[in-house]
Amino acid sequence: MTAPPSTTPTSGESSSAPDALRELRDALRRFALERDWDPFHTPKSLACALSVEAAELLEPFQWLSEAQSATLPPETLRHVRQELADVLLYLIRLADKLNVDLADAARAKLESNALRYPVAKARGSSRKYTEL
Amino acid sequence: MTAPPSTTPTSGESSSAPDALRELRDALRRFALERDWDPFHTPKSLACALSVEAAELLEPFQWLSEAQSATLPPETLRHVRQELADVLLYLIRLADKLNVDLADAARAKLESNALRYPVAKARGSSRKYTEL
Amino acid sequence: MTAPPSTTPTSGESSSAPDALRELRDALRRFALERDWDPFHTPKSLACALSVEAAELLEPFQWLSEAQSATLPPETLRHVRQELADVLLYLIRLADKLNVDLADAARAKLESNALRYPVAKARGSSRKYTEL
Amino acid sequence: MTAPPSTTPTSGESSSAPDALRELRDALRRFALERDWDPFHTPKSLACALSVEAAELLEPFQWLSEAQSATLPPETLRHVRQELADVLLYLIRLADKLNVDLADAARAKLESNALRYPVAKARGSSRKYTEL
Repeated sequence: MTAPPSTTPTSGESSSAPDALRELRDALRRFALERDWDPFHTPKSLACALSVEAAELLEPFQWLSEAQSATLPPETLRHVRQELADVLLYLIRLADKLNVDLADAARAKLESNALRYPVAKARGSSRKYTEL
Repeated sequence: MTAPPSTTPTSGESSSAPDALRELRDALRRFALERDWDPFHTPKSLACALSVEAAELLEPFQWLSEAQSATLPPETLRHVRQELADVLLYLIRLADKLNVDLADAARAKLESNALRYPVAKARGSSRKYTEL
Repeated sequence: MTAPPSTTPTSGESSSAPDALRELRDALRRFALERDWDPFHTPKSLACALSVEAAELLEPFQWLSEAQSATLPPETLRHVRQELADVLLYLIRLADKLNVDLADAARAKLESNALRYPVAKARGSSRKYTEL
Repeated sequence: MTAPPSTTPTSGESSSAPDALRELRDALRRFALERDWDPFHTPKSLACALSVEAAELLEPFQWLSEAQSATLPPETLRHVRQELADVLLYLIRLADKLNVDLADAARAKLESNALRYPVAKARGSSRKYTEL
């Protein structure tokens, strides 16, 4: 599953939409550069920060039932939206520092997940692939 | 920072590049549907799974120094690449279930981060905005 | 591995029971010393490892409903028991490296929790103290 | 908050010291009962909460170097002490709900760790046992 090449716009053509992952990666590079934050952004520290944000994303749900978690009050949803954003930003930043193309990595993982979880075996089951 | 609208291709024009986040979101919908996994994919459970993957991403780094974390052996990098992918996939899935546009949320958070961390105050400092 | 009682029993006296937290702290010191692991056991690395183990503890629960989580199959409970142990071991080790008396810290926190969550206000509510 | 000794002292006998884990377990039972919190304390929710606290414990360290993490300013150490306490409290509570004796589980895990990491092979190495 590969994206078509970006083409040079000519008159009458609309330019190809910028890929959000790339756009955010570049914005984060500028953000860190302006603030001299690169020395702090070692992969280990970024992996720590991402883990912390993932837990901040989990916190609003911790005492909810599964059903309640699907009908969040607007205030909670607003907060969760910010935490989703925080996780994505650190994920993009960490992938960038490690020279990993996030979208390609995700596509490759989806393909190997399809092999690990063939429909016939995995349908309706939450079992890990090692137990299918 | 909003993306231009996708335009309907006409002859001679190239179609706009599919956004990776949207493409992966749709692939994940199909993946879960084929396997009857939607009942398991409550927001709370997805938030748990994302947190678990974030920790699996941290684990290869836990005993490394900051410097070592920037020069991972190929085998470790291969593993980390898969964990980056796992985090992205759960993040996209969770945002989808909550009807949150991940890219928009990330752009909005970057803007508010710029206000919380003005360059003049934040330059060269790892302090949290509450302590600037 | 049970610790010997701390005092030599004499007739008429019962020996004081060794405190498990202290016993495990000492066992972990010996374990790390024998293996030359102290250089790896910086507080940051131990905090990472603890976070990773906490997620390994969460993983068996991630697709379960709240009700299912209270009736784990024996195999799962066996696994969860090991993860509970891993979290405790890293917690004791990290507290030791930071010279923190874990039991005292926990008692103090319980007291401040009682002030943050007075029975009259907190009864039957999962709200955070900032929202009571 | 110190627990009263478990036996009534009679002349010539010293009372056995209460084990901190047991004392805190009982204090947590009372705390939750007084506030009608037991319905919220399903194992899944407690495992979520523990994971969240483990991340709050990691956060003060995320931008520090390994060396800095060993010399925390007093204010930071005070905060970290509270997070260590939070992790212990949720760990004790979760083990209680699952009928797991935490100290016994930790001792058993230390023993199996000694087998997985024999001194001769593990000395000076941070490798996981699967790679020794």
